[in-house]
Amino acid sequence: MPKIIDHEIRKKVIAEATLRVISEKGMKGATVRNIAKEAGVSIGALQHYFSTQTELLKYAMNLVIERVTERINHIAKQDIPPRKMVVQILLEIIPTNEETKTEMHVWFEFIVFARNKPDIFYIQSDGLLKNLNRFMNILEEKKILKKNLNKEVEAEKLYAIVDGLALHAMLDPDRLNKDLIITILTDHVDHLFQ
Amino acid sequence: MPKIIDHEIRKKVIAEATLRVISEKGMKGATVRNIAKEAGVSIGALQHYFSTQTELLKYAMNLVIERVTERINHIAKQDIPPRKMVVQILLEIIPTNEETKTEMHVWFEFIVFARNKPDIFYIQSDGLLKNLNRFMNILEEKKILKKNLNKEVEAEKLYAIVDGLALHAMLDPDRLNKDLIITILTDHVDHLFQ
Repeated sequence: MPKIIDHEIRKKVIAEATLRVISEKGMKGATVRNIAKEAGVSIGALQHYFSTQTELLKYAMNLVIERVTERINHIAKQDIPPRKMVVQILLEIIPTNEETKTEMHVWFEFIVFARNKPDIFYIQSDGLLKNLNRFMNILEEKKILKKNLNKEVEAEKLYAIVDGLALHAMLDPDRLNKDLIITILTDHVDHLFQ
Repeated sequence: MPKIIDHEIRKKVIAEATLRVISEKGMKGATVRNIAKEAGVSIGALQHYFSTQTELLKYAMNLVIERVTERINHIAKQDIPPRKMVVQILLEIIPTNEETKTEMHVWFEFIVFARNKPDIFYIQSDGLLKNLNRFMNILEEKKILKKNLNKEVEAEKLYAIVDGLALHAMLDPDRLNKDLIITILTDHVDHLFQ
């Protein structure tokens, strides 16, 4: 196996261990020692791949974004009716299974942690909003968007609904289960579509 | 001054110092030492009022809930048109000024901290949802609620919008400013009202 691929695989293994540690122990448990142990590597080896904790955290958080994007792109390629596709895509962001629950928990830990460190972590916190704005433009072009709706307001509102549901599903998964989330999203998509 | 009132005032002073410490230093900075220093009392005095950190945190978080409830009740008593009143009430929850920003920051720090400690902290995380359900019932009784809306779904959706906007306003106050928040809330209230 070429060395460069091996290098990337090892970085991913360490980043995945980082996500598990943050999910289990919170941000303050995300020490080099704990992460090296979880990844099954020495502290020296970990520091060979990531010279600082900041570098490691940035890489791990980008891994979360990459994973979600990959799942969404996979759905977008399928042959599904538009309303159903939109609901399915949004379900990749809102935690309804173990994978998305871990992602969301880690993500909230991270944004609270990174909030007062804008010089160190530039969080693309509005990446989803940009995509929702693009989405509203597509709906308008295809004449699917209901008339008299303000695109900018609808993008912000859907962004708030998605992150609000994600937060509530994380805090209270028994009440806000997958069926109820699908009902709410479907209802809202009906409000957007002609 | 009767001793019992003095006792309550001192507890509030310490709780308010706790909120400032959490807002500035995060949950991990909320040590007995830091809080006593911020409140201008000795560690011994602090422990006289709150024998454990858990007790103090519960008291401080209830203080946040009490404050928000008080402000909302004050608005509810005023003579304002219903649509405007609803928007004004929701604005007491979403951070748009220094007071609500501190409250929201502390609240998010706290729910992330308390999330894995359900045995210690029972967070009434859906207190707002219960109020929004009551609100939908009132709108229906007064024949203000648009027909064909599912009350339960609309309460969950408004709950998600409020907390989603609160999260985004905390993360990105420059983009999601007070005017934009009012526009989004007004738009949504128009969607609910006949």
